[in-house]
Parts: sequence; C-alpha cells; structure tokens
Amino acid sequence: VAALKKPRRVVILVKAGKPVDETIDVLAAHMEAGDMIVDGGNEWYPNTLARGEKLRPRGIRFVGMGVSGGEEGARHGPSLMPGCERDAYDALEPVLRKIAAQTDSGPCVTWCGELGAGNYVKMVHNGIEYGDMQLIAEVYDVLKTLKGLDNDELSSIFAEWNRGELQSYLVEITSQIFARRDVEESGAETADFVVDKILDKTGMKGTGRWTVQEAAERSVAAPTIASALDMRIISALKEQREATAARFPAVEADAIPRVDKAQLVADLRKALYAAKICSYAQGMQLIAAAAAENEWSINLAECARIWKGGCIIRARFLDRIRAAFERSPDLPSLLLDPEFASEILDALPHWRRVVTLAVACGIPTPALSASLQYFYSVRRARLPANLTQAQRDFFGAHSYQRTDKPGDFHTEWLKHNPLAPSAAAAAGGGAASSAAE
Amino acid sequence: VAALKKPRRVVILVKAGKPVDETIDVLAAHMEAGDMIVDGGNEWYPNTLARGEKLRPRGIRFVGMGVSGGEEGARHGPSLMPGCERDAYDALEPVLRKIAAQTDSGPCVTWCGELGAGNYVKMVHNGIEYGDMQLIAEVYDVLKTLKGLDNDELSSIFAEWNRGELQSYLVEITSQIFARRDVEESGAETADFVVDKILDKTGMKGTGRWTVQEAAERSVAAPTIASALDMRIISALKEQREATAARFPAVEADAIPRVDKAQLVADLRKALYAAKICSYAQGMQLIAAAAAENEWSINLAECARIWKGGCIIRARFLDRIRAAFERSPDLPSLLLDPEFASEILDALPHWRRVVTLAVACGIPTPALSASLQYFYSVRRARLPANLTQAQRDFFGAHSYQRTDKPGDFHTEWLKHNPLAPSAAAAAGGGAASSAAE
Repeated sequence: VAALKKPRRVVILVKAGKPVDETIDVLAAHMEAGDMIVDGGNEWYPNTLARGEKLRPRGIRFVGMGVSGGEEGARHGPSLMPGCERDAYDALEPVLRKIAAQTDSGPCVTWCGELGAGNYVKMVHNGIEYGDMQLIAEVYDVLKTLKGLDNDELSSIFAEWNRGELQSYLVEITSQIFARRDVEESGAETADFVVDKILDKTGMKGTGRWTVQEAAERSVAAPTIASALDMRIISALKEQREATAARFPAVEADAIPRVDKAQLVADLRKALYAAKICSYAQGMQLIAAAAAENEWSINLAECARIWKGGCIIRARFLDRIRAAFERSPDLPSLLLDPEFASEILDALPHWRRVVTLAVACGIPTPALSASLQYFYSVRRARLPANLTQAQRDFFGAHSYQRTDKPGDFHTEWLKHNPLAPSAAAAAGGGAASSAAE
Repeated sequence: VAALKKPRRVVILVKAGKPVDETIDVLAAHMEAGDMIVDGGNEWYPNTLARGEKLRPRGIRFVGMGVSGGEEGARHGPSLMPGCERDAYDALEPVLRKIAAQTDSGPCVTWCGELGAGNYVKMVHNGIEYGDMQLIAEVYDVLKTLKGLDNDELSSIFAEWNRGELQSYLVEITSQIFARRDVEESGAETADFVVDKILDKTGMKGTGRWTVQEAAERSVAAPTIASALDMRIISALKEQREATAARFPAVEADAIPRVDKAQLVADLRKALYAAKICSYAQGMQLIAAAAAENEWSINLAECARIWKGGCIIRARFLDRIRAAFERSPDLPSLLLDPEFASEILDALPHWRRVVTLAVACGIPTPALSASLQYFYSVRRARLPANLTQAQRDFFGAHSYQRTDKPGDFHTEWLKHNPLAPSAAAAAGGGAASSAAE
C-alpha cells in the first residue's frame, strides 16, 4: 500500500463475503482519506452499502464493481460495472477504460450509478445470462428430441445463427461446444462428443437466485429468468427426476407430428430471438425499478452498451437495446419500443408454433413458454384479474375498484345472490339488507 | 393481564411488524415466567424467531400462529397453524381445538412444529392460495375468450365442478361471484354482474412474495406460485398493459379453432385439477425443505388435514394429499405418489390440449402452463442441462460431472475443436496440448 501513488486505487477480486471484509480491513489500516478500494466480486449489494458506510468516516471511498468476462475476459478485457460516488468514478475511469473490453461502441465501462448500483447491474446481467442459457438449452432439446439432430448439425445451426440477429458469445460457444470431440487419457480423439458425456446436473453461484428474489421484492415480473433458475434447481434433482420418469412417458411420442426440419429451425430461431427480447425487457425493468427506489443514477442505454463486449451476454442484439433506450430513456418496457414490437409481431407465428408443438409433445420449454406467457399477459389490456379481486373481496373484504366509477368498493357477495346458501330465506329480507349495503 | 388465569395464554391479532412488538412489550411487562403470547398475524418467520429470543430470558413462551379463514373463518372457526415448543402447544391445544374449524377429519389445528414453523406453513398456504386463484382466473379467461360464455354459464360450470374432485371453497365462491348482480344505490338490482364492473388490478399483502423468495432461497422450484405472483404484479400495471395492447392484437383471433364447448369445459376441468396437483407438490416441497434446514418437526399429512376446513384453500382434494403423506411421510414429491401419478396421466391429454389451444390463440395461461412445464421437467430423466454445464465450463471453468465416470472434469473447449478461431494453427500442436489436458 505504501508504494502506491496517492490517492491510492486498489482493486480487490476475492471471494464474496467474509474474505472481502478481511481484505478491506487489512488494506484500510494502511490507507488514508481519499484513497479508494474497488471490490470486483459478485457481491450482494446491501453488503457493499454496509462496507461503504463503514469506510465513510475514515474518508476512504468504496466502489462495488461488477466484473463479467470469465477466463476470456481476464485475458482480453472484461465488462466493468462500477457503482460509487461520481467523483470516485471519474478518478478511476482512465484506468478502467484501459482494462475494459474494447468494442466499436467504446470501452465496456461506464458509471453505473451510486454505491450498490454496480453490483445490482451485474446481478441482473447474470440473471439475464441464466435466461439466455436456458433458452438455448430448450432449443437444443427440441431439435434433438423432435428431429434427432446430431451434434454436427446442431453445431452448424448455432454457427449459422451466430452470423445473424442472434450473434452472441453464448450462441458462438454453443456451436463450438457441439463440435468438440471427447479425448481419451492418451490424448487420442474419440468418435464421441464431450457434450453427450456431461451429466445433466447444473450448478449455480447465487446471482440468479438473487435476481429472482429481487424481482419479487420490487414487484417486477421476471418469469423467464425465474424459469431458468427453476431449471437449474430441477436439473440438480437428478435422482428425483429418474424416479418420476419411471412413472410417466418421457415425452408424448404419439403426439409428435411430421415437422419439416428447415421450418422447425427457422421457427426456433425466431422464437429464441423473441423470447430473448422479453427476458431482457424483464431485466431492464428490474434495474429501472431498483434505480427508482434507491435513487441510483442508472443509464439503461449505457448498461446495454457496456454489455456489448467482454461479458458473457455480449451480443449484437445489445445495440438494439441501447438504441431503444437512447430513443426513449424512460421507456417502461422494451415491448413498447416500436422496433422491438415490430420484431415480436414478425416472430410471433413462429414462436407460437414452437411452444404449441413442444407442449403437445411434452418437451419442456419453460423459458420459451414463460417469455411467451409474459408477452401474452402484458399485451392484454383486460386480464381476468377482476375475478381475482372479486375473490379477495369475497373472502377477505379487501375491496376493489370499478371500471365505471372511482373509489373503493366492497360487495356483500351472498346478498342478492341466488346461489347463497340461504337465498330462499334471504329473499324475504332482501329489500332491507340491500338498502344498508 | 392481572385478571387472567395462570399460566396466562394471550392471543394477539394485530398488524404484523411494529404493532406486534409494541403489543408484546406492553403485555410482557405484566407477565411472568410460564405465560404465553400467541401472535396470530401473517408474520415473516424470522421476526417470530427474534421475538422468541427476546422473550426467552424472561421465561415467557412465544407462539407464532398462522390463522386463515377470512371473514367466515372469524365467525365459524379458522384453520390454525401454531409453531412453538411442543409443551407450549400442549398447554394451548384444548382451547385451540375449540376455536378451530371442525371437519370430519377433526379440528383444523395441529402442532405445526417449532417456533417459526407455523408462520412458514401459513406463508406457503397463502402461496398455494395465490396459485389456486390464478388457475381459476385462467380457466375463466379461456372460457370467456374462446367460447364467449356468459356469467350464468360460468356460474353453473363452477357450481358443477364444486360437486366433484375440484370441490373447494375457492371454486364455490367463484360460482357465487358469477351469480351476483350489480345493485344500484337505490338498492335495485341491475341486469349487470358485479364481476364485470371490477377493475382488473389486483392487490397483495406480501405472503405470496415471501413464498416465491423463500422458494428461491431453499432451491425449490415453485413456478406455479411464482406465475401467480407475477400476474398480480402485471395486473397492477394496467396503464402499461393498455399502452402495449395498442401495439399488438389482443389475441390471435384468426388462430381460434372450432372447439366443442362441452369438450373444452371437460378439458379445463382436468387441466385445473392436474395443475393444482403440481402447485401443491411445489408448496409441500418448500415446507419440507424449510423443515429440513430449520430442524422443524413438520408433519405434511397434518398440514393437509388442518387445511381441510376454515382456511381459504380448503378442499376435498386435501384428503388426497393427506393420504399420500400418510402412505409415505417422506414422499419427495406428490408426483411420486401412485394415485396422483395416475390422475395426472389421466388428465394429461386434456391439460396439453388446453395449453396448446391457449398458446395458439394467444390467451395467457401462465399458471396452467407453468404447472405443465414443471411436470414435463421433473418427469424427464435427461434434461438439456448438459449443455448448460458445458457452457459454464467453457466460459467460467466451472467444471462438470460425467455420465460415464466419477469426478469433476474440465475441458479446454477450443482444443481439438474444428471451430476454434485458430483451429488450423492449433492442429500442429494438438498432440502436445491434449496430453496436458
């Protein structure tokens, strides 16, 4: 610490939780007012806020910075999502711009907002990453189960998609994964593919879970991301799935219709793209909700820009999201952007065909389906929630609003009701009781 | 307090949070060791644990007791879900058995487990209630949108269903809701129905949200309950839905096929029942997971029994759940119970038909669909999670397990890979690098 130029700027990348506190304590003991500590871990944002509070009296400035990029990001530059006081960011920016991945939209770093906001943006990035991965897995499952595509064909399809609107790191590595042969200990390639040897149990590290919990906390619907978390959970229950599988057919094989392979591939491409739009719409809404409640200055267009390189969800598609939020910084939902709306309309017949087909055949497509259900729900001016409110008023006197006049209303549901248990008896006294209603 | 027989047993029913603390403080000041305070509110269970800790040094025994029943439960007896030390329950039981709703399976009260467990069981009860209400709303929407059923027909259908396997309080009040005419201020009945006048924005009070957050925390998939929470959230965004609706058709009207009304009603009945089984399977798994982690002595068969009367989800169906857990107290999932499995197999063609139809036509059925996707996922021995693990290993070196040998493995995915960016160059050094792999 003593050797560093003042004000000192120290980036730590250690395991989230206690190790971060211990490292900060050791560093801070040798630091002085104006110095900065940047935590680059996947930290739960309230922990970052608490650390900032603890360091504040000493004048040490704390930065919670999301970092995405995995092994490749470590070598070629990651996407950096720092949250801190604006002037602390200004002091760090020259260094961070050099460390970050470089794209045709600039280096993948921006001021993500105040302390905590950087961790939040990274958390949602990871939730979106869960969604993207689950959507790709479902496309794989449908192609393999319905048409028996082999790994070479799958690899070609994802490579082809990677040249168009789906261009992204995850689609690219998917094509590469399907091309990878298994290798014996001797070093000799086998005829098998690694992907076929991998056990279907996934791990996870917490950020997807946090995203789902935060979405519930902020009253933001994020069903695509939630379905991806659920599938991580269900995949891990391998033994329970095997026991359940023994009681049921694996798929409804008799229901599998003749499907043209080229048409199915084209349908899946559009379905994946539309489902992705809905998933990103959920994630962006979550960031916006947290920013509003925490008074964070988060620029959603900038979030999309810095995700364009370095990080796991990097994709051409993010240019579109950036443009949508540049056109309309307060856009409540990506589905309200005219360009995305038109793309969804274009994809809709394909997307519906994919989900109906998979549902008919019994192939799980929870994320493709959750996105579609999300779209169906938010594009509907009138939902059957009137019945839900009626039920809540019936059993709990929770009251309801009306479509024809303002105010809160409560109904005595079993008065004026031919189905009331004592309707016959009540009919006599109906006039009196209804007047009191 | 001074007038009460010792040991004193005081039940408080005040608003959760600070009012509970204030009431406890006032009461405890006049109480002594061995006295009991029973909090009957919808409390977040860690708050109950903290209150128990605070009262422990003074020897005052604290009980967190879930109470369900709404207005009717208050008059005719609710379902009571107390969590506390066993001997505290024994001291309270004679009174609670008299207060509780009475059914042919006994009074709706049992020892739900240690402190906190009663609040937890009530929380999950409410999550399940959200799911049931959303499923019923979707059935209503499908019948109304696809076949234009009027309220009299809807009322008759739910009344009919209430005489069979779907018999339940929520189905019963749904039939009564559809029968209720709107009444003018003068007291005169109109030709309109109240349900049609209710704004489609739902409220909520927190227990559904907690259930979803806890499910994520405990790694339990609860997609049906989560979809119901999402629809509460989306329903409240009325203005955003209206703006989105302006950009898209409300439903895919051109895709609505000729459907026989009787067949559709029969299909929906089976779909609702099967979706309910999946939703309850999720809720029971969540209780079991929390019981295991908190070392709570929760008897799932008893939970089902005390929900049979008094509470909002009371239903004939709960006898079946009770029987399943009596047959096999450690049943990991209701789907593994032979009777439920056989009912799901029976319902499956109908359920698939409903969801494919609604998806094709663009009618949102998120809960019916989430239950079906859940079933499809857990009954599948092999999921595409192998690809997800491959991706995680590719970008983050997270390692994977194999199907053919034990251990943790990592692959250098771009070695031995014809799609590696430098495949041609790598081919020369392939033998050496693979040996090191």
